[in-house]
Amino acid sequence: MKETHRVVLLPSGRQGDVQHNTTILEAARSLGVDIESICGGRQVCGKCLVAPEYGQFAKHGITSDETNVTPPDAVEVTYAEQNGLNLNECRLSCAAHLLGDMVINVPERSLARKQAIRKAAGELAVEVDPVCRLAYVEIESAELGSKSDWHRIKQALATQHGIEGVSIDPLLLPRLQKTLRDGKWSVTIVVWNDEQVISVYPGYSEQIYGLAVDVGSTTLAGHLCDLRTGEVLATTSIMNPQVRYGEDLMSRVSFGMMNSNGVDRMHKAVVKALNDLAAAAAEEAGIATDDIVDVVLAGNTVMHHLLLGIDPVELGGAPFALAMEDAIDIRARDLGLNAIARGGMVHVLPCIAGHVGADNTAVLLASHHTFKEDVVDLIVDIGTNAEILLAHNGQVTSASSPTGPAFEGAQIKHGQRAATGAIERVRIDPATGEPRYKVIGDERWSNDLADDETLSPTGICGSGIIEAIAEMYLVGMIDTTGLFTPHAIESNPLVRMNGKTGEMILVPADKSANGEAIVVTQQDIRAIQLAKAALYAGVKLLMDHMAVTTLGRIRLAGGFGSYIDPKYAMILGLVPDCDLERIGAVGNAAGDGARLALLSQEQRALAQTLVEAVQYVETAVEPAFQELFVAAMGIPHATDAYPHLLHLLPAVAVHGSGEAEPRRKGGRRRRRAT
Amino acid sequence: MKETHRVVLLPSGRQGDVQHNTTILEAARSLGVDIESICGGRQVCGKCLVAPEYGQFAKHGITSDETNVTPPDAVEVTYAEQNGLNLNECRLSCAAHLLGDMVINVPERSLARKQAIRKAAGELAVEVDPVCRLAYVEIESAELGSKSDWHRIKQALATQHGIEGVSIDPLLLPRLQKTLRDGKWSVTIVVWNDEQVISVYPGYSEQIYGLAVDVGSTTLAGHLCDLRTGEVLATTSIMNPQVRYGEDLMSRVSFGMMNSNGVDRMHKAVVKALNDLAAAAAEEAGIATDDIVDVVLAGNTVMHHLLLGIDPVELGGAPFALAMEDAIDIRARDLGLNAIARGGMVHVLPCIAGHVGADNTAVLLASHHTFKEDVVDLIVDIGTNAEILLAHNGQVTSASSPTGPAFEGAQIKHGQRAATGAIERVRIDPATGEPRYKVIGDERWSNDLADDETLSPTGICGSGIIEAIAEMYLVGMIDTTGLFTPHAIESNPLVRMNGKTGEMILVPADKSANGEAIVVTQQDIRAIQLAKAALYAGVKLLMDHMAVTTLGRIRLAGGFGSYIDPKYAMILGLVPDCDLERIGAVGNAAGDGARLALLSQEQRALAQTLVEAVQYVETAVEPAFQELFVAAMGIPHATDAYPHLLHLLPAVAVHGSGEAEPRRKGGRRRRRAT
Repeated sequence: MKETHRVVLLPSGRQGDVQHNTTILEAARSLGVDIESICGGRQVCGKCLVAPEYGQFAKHGITSDETNVTPPDAVEVTYAEQNGLNLNECRLSCAAHLLGDMVINVPERSLARKQAIRKAAGELAVEVDPVCRLAYVEIESAELGSKSDWHRIKQALATQHGIEGVSIDPLLLPRLQKTLRDGKWSVTIVVWNDEQVISVYPGYSEQIYGLAVDVGSTTLAGHLCDLRTGEVLATTSIMNPQVRYGEDLMSRVSFGMMNSNGVDRMHKAVVKALNDLAAAAAEEAGIATDDIVDVVLAGNTVMHHLLLGIDPVELGGAPFALAMEDAIDIRARDLGLNAIARGGMVHVLPCIAGHVGADNTAVLLASHHTFKEDVVDLIVDIGTNAEILLAHNGQVTSASSPTGPAFEGAQIKHGQRAATGAIERVRIDPATGEPRYKVIGDERWSNDLADDETLSPTGICGSGIIEAIAEMYLVGMIDTTGLFTPHAIESNPLVRMNGKTGEMILVPADKSANGEAIVVTQQDIRAIQLAKAALYAGVKLLMDHMAVTTLGRIRLAGGFGSYIDPKYAMILGLVPDCDLERIGAVGNAAGDGARLALLSQEQRALAQTLVEAVQYVETAVEPAFQELFVAAMGIPHATDAYPHLLHLLPAVAVHGSGEAEPRRKGGRRRRRAT
Repeated sequence: MKETHRVVLLPSGRQGDVQHNTTILEAARSLGVDIESICGGRQVCGKCLVAPEYGQFAKHGITSDETNVTPPDAVEVTYAEQNGLNLNECRLSCAAHLLGDMVINVPERSLARKQAIRKAAGELAVEVDPVCRLAYVEIESAELGSKSDWHRIKQALATQHGIEGVSIDPLLLPRLQKTLRDGKWSVTIVVWNDEQVISVYPGYSEQIYGLAVDVGSTTLAGHLCDLRTGEVLATTSIMNPQVRYGEDLMSRVSFGMMNSNGVDRMHKAVVKALNDLAAAAAEEAGIATDDIVDVVLAGNTVMHHLLLGIDPVELGGAPFALAMEDAIDIRARDLGLNAIARGGMVHVLPCIAGHVGADNTAVLLASHHTFKEDVVDLIVDIGTNAEILLAHNGQVTSASSPTGPAFEGAQIKHGQRAATGAIERVRIDPATGEPRYKVIGDERWSNDLADDETLSPTGICGSGIIEAIAEMYLVGMIDTTGLFTPHAIESNPLVRMNGKTGEMILVPADKSANGEAIVVTQQDIRAIQLAKAALYAGVKLLMDHMAVTTLGRIRLAGGFGSYIDPKYAMILGLVPDCDLERIGAVGNAAGDGARLALLSQEQRALAQTLVEAVQYVETAVEPAFQELFVAAMGIPHATDAYPHLLHLLPAVAVHGSGEAEPRRKGGRRRRRAT
C-alpha cells in the first residue's frame, strides 16, 4: 500500500499527493480548493458534496478506482437516504477517505468561496468570503467536573473548525445554555472576523444574512444578502426621514446647530429608518431579522457623522474637519440598530475627506478594477454635492463640488424629486418652439395623446429640467449666458415675462396636475447654471491637478446619474468633453460597493487601502476652482472645448426625438415612484 | 564631547550609558526605571520630577556637574513658577537633557508603577500598573486637508506615547470634536489595555478611577481606587437587593425557575445596586462617576451568572454546569452599568468550578503568594456555601461544601444577620449554668449592667450561635450528639422542654428587644451541626485528596470568618485540628483580590492562570463526602483528632471570660450595623 495517493481535482485541474486515508475534504483543502463545510466534517450539513470519477485517466496517469475511496458508513448512508442522494454519483467529502489515486469533481456549489456576480454592472465577480461565517459544532454533554458550556464550545471551534482563541459577545451568554440544550449539545455558531461569536443557533442552521445599505440624503437603499451564497434576497428602499429636518445636507447641518437636540433627533431618525429597512428587507426575503448578523453602511460624510451620532457642524465650514474617516466596526446595538441579531455587527465604510464620504469609497470599491492605466476615467456621483473621482495611471484624485440641490429638483420653481408624475424628458420643436414631455410612470410623449387626455404632470425632476434648458438653448430660446432672448419673448407665445425676468410655459395650466402652469423660470436656469458650473469646475480642477486635458470615459453614479441623458448633460456643460459613447451610468455603485464589502472581507479591507491612496483636492479653497467656476457659467456648445459635441450637434438639433434616451430599469423606476 | 554619558539613578542604584542629549526621562526608562509621564514629555503633567545630584561621586567615578544637564527652558520655568518648584532642587525629567555624567535621584512618587500596599493584610505590595492608563496628547489644529480629528489623536498616541494601532469606542465619537476644541487641541485619553480609547477629557487631566466590588449574596462591598496611585479613596457597602428574592443562593435559583422573568429581575436588581454603589463611592470620594473607567467584579457562581444575566438554573443541580468560567471583559453599558464612564469597562474575574466562584478566585489571588511549599494551608470562605481552598507543595485544590445559611443566622429560631443588637458573644458559667452575652454595637457584657439596664438583644448572629452551642457543650448542657442532657433539663431552670425537644433561654423575655425570650433550640443545634459537618467534611475530603493529615495554617475569609472565634469554631468541629495560633481571619480577601486585579494587569492575568491550575473536587458526588459528613455530626472535643484543642480545653473551660475574642475593626462593624 502506498503512503500517499495522487488526487486530481476537476474542473480546476489542481492536483497533488496526499497522505493515505485523508478525507477528500482535507485533501482538496491541502491542494488549495476550499470546499464548504459548515459542520466541520460531521456529516450534517451536506455542503461538501463531491463526485468521485471512476475509470482510467491516461492524461493524469491515474486509475481512479471505486476501491480507492472508503465506502459510505452508516451516518453517510442515513444522510443520503434522508436527502435523496445517490452515493454512487456523489459523496460527502468529509466522510470519504482516500485509499488510492482519485479524480474528483468539485461542483461550484460545493466551493467555500462561491462566486457572486454583481448584477448591476454585470462585470465583477467576487469570491463570497464574508467577515461572518457559520460553524456547526457538537460537544459532549455537561458532566460533573466538565468545563463550562462555553469552554467546551470554544474547544470544539478550535478542534472542529480550526478557529482558535475566539471570544463570545457577553450578551449571548444568557441564552447560551438553553440554546445548547435545545440543540441537544450541538449549536451553529456565527463567528465574526474569526474573533468573536456573535450569534448562536440550536442544532444545525444555515441562516446567515447581511445587509448592505447606501444611506443617501434622500433615500436609504439596502441589499439583503445571503452571506453563505452571496445571493441578493431583497432590495429595499426607504425614505431618509431626516428629510423633514432639511432637504439638503447644509440644511441638516444647520438644523443640528439651531436645535439643542437636533443632532440626536436626526441620528435617531436615520437609525430608525435602518431598523425599518432591515425589517422590510427581512420580510420581503422571508427571513427572520434575528438572522441578520452583519451590516455595511455607506453614506456621504454628513450622513456618516449623523449615523454615528456625531454633530456634522465641523463639516459645515472650513476646514471641514471629520471626526473620523477610518472604517469603523461597531456593535449594532451600540448604534441603536436593534432589528438585527443581538450580537450583530455594523461596518461603516471609511470616508475619503471632509466632503467625500463613504458612499464614494463604495463607488471606488465597485469600480476601481475597471480603471485602465492609459485611460482618464471620471466617475461622478451627483447629489447635493457632486463627488468626483478621477483616475489615471494608477492614481486616483477626488474632489467634492458644491452643486447644491438643483439637480435633485430643489431650488427649481416647479422642481420635484423623481417620482410618479414628474416630467423627466423634454423636447422643443425647433420650428414651432413648442415643448413636449414625458412623465415618470408613463411611456407616452405629451403630444401623442388624444385631446382629452393629459399626463397630469406634477412638476419637473432633475433630468427634466436639464433637458428643458438644453432644448431651450438648442432652439435659441435662451442664449449662451442663459438669458431668454428678446426674439423668443417677442415671437413665442409660450415665453413670457414674469416681472423683470422671462419664463417658458412647459405645461399649460389645464394640462397640469394641480391646474397651475408648470414653467421654467430665469431663476431656474440660473440655479442649473450654478450647479453645472460647480460640477464642471470640480472636474476641471482635478484634470488640471492630474495634468490631463481629455477624458477617456465618464461614468455617472447614483439615481440622477442613471436618469440623465449624457448628451444633454454635455450640451449644458455639466461635464467636460468626452466621446458620448464613453459616457454611461453605473447605477447604484455605492450600493454595489457596500455589498462587496459585505460579501468579502478582502474587499472590506481593500476599501480602506483604496481610500488611503486617494489624493483629495479641496475645492473650497482652491483659487483656481473659483476661476473655473465663473468661466463655466455659460452654456458652452459653441466653444471649441467640446469637439465630440460639435460633431453631434446637428443630430441633436434635427432629431431630438427621444430615441436616444438612456435605457433604464423599469423595476427600479417603479419602486422609486411608489 | 563624549558621545555617551554615564547615568546613575538613586535610590535604585541602576546605572548605564546613554546617548548625548537624551532626556533624563528617556535615560531612566532605558535603564529600567519607568518614570511616570501622563503628558508624554510635554512639560504639562509634572509627574516626572527628579532631583539631579551635583558633586563628586567617587563611588561611581562620576563628577555630576550642573553643566551636565541642559538649563530649564521657558516652558519649564513657567511650569516651575506656576507650581512653586525650585528648579535648583528638582527638574522635569522630560525637559532636562543630559550633556554629561549625572547622578539623579528618582523619588518614589515619580515612578510609573507605584507601590500600593494592601492595607487589610498589610503584607502585599503591588505595582500599580492597571489595564487603563492616561495619556495626554497635543495635536495640530484642524486645517484644510488635515486628516480627521481622531486620526491625528491616534497618531499623537503613537508618537507621543508609543501606543500603536489603538481604536476608539465608537460611542465616544459624538463628543470627540467638541472635547478636542474645548481643550484647545489637547486631550487626555484613557486607553484600555493599550487597545482602545474608552474616555477622553479636554486638556490635561489626572482623573482615572476604578471600582473593585465583591458581589456577595447579602452585601456588595466596593473599593473605589485611584488608578494612577493605587490609593483607596472610598470603601462602600450596599445591601444586595436580590435578598428580597431569596436569602440564600438556592432560593434565588428557585426564584429564577418559578418566575418567568425572575432571572431578569434579579439581574437588574444587582446591576442597579452596582450603579448605586458606584454613585455612593464616588460621592464619598468626591469624584465624578464619569471618571470611573474600570470595574472589577468578584462573586460566587450564582452571583456571577446573575450579574451577567445568565439563568443560574444549571447551578441548582448536578452536573452544576457553568455557562462560562473564564474571565470576561464586558462594556459597562452592555451590563446596564451606566453610573460610570460611557466607554467604561467591566472585568469579571474567572470562576473555578460550578460551586467555586470568582470570589474564591479573588481570595486565591489575594493569598496565593503566602502559600509555602511545606505548609498545608487552608482558606475557608464561609457563606451559604463554604468555599474551601487547600494548598500544599505548590498545588491548590478546591471544593464547595453545602453548609446552608445557618452560619449566617438563617434557619436558626432567633437567628439574624450580624447587625446592631445581634448577640455575637456568649459565655455560660460552668458552675451556675447561667449565660451572659454581648451584642453588636455595645462593648459591655450583659452581666456587667445595672439591674435596670438591658442590652435589648434582637436575636443571635452566626458567631453568637456558635459560641452559645460550644459553651453549652463545654458546661455539659448538651452532649456529644448535640442533645440536651437530662441533667441539664432537670437542674437548670434556664433549660426547658418545648414540646418534645429542649431549649435554653439565652435572654429572658424582659431583657430582649421585643419582649420575647431569645432561646437556643434543639433544632438550632441540629442546624449548626449539619452546617459544621458539611464544612468539616469538605475540608477533610480535600485533605484526603492531597494525602495530608494535618493542617499547618487556617485562614477564615469573609465577614463571618472575621467575627468567629477560632477556638469555638474548633470546639464545635467546624474545622479540623490546627494550632490555634495559626488560625486567623483574612478579612475581605475577595475584595482585596478584586482590588489587585483592578490595580495591576499582571495580577489580572495571574488570576486566570491561578484558576486554571486549581484542582476542583466535587463534594456533591463523592461517596467519601457523605461518609465524612455523617461522621462529623458529633461535637468532637473528646476525640483524639484534636490534639491542639485538648491541650487548650482547660483554659477554655476555666476562663471563658472573653479576653481571647478576636480583634475586629470597629469601623467596618459600625458600617455593617447601620
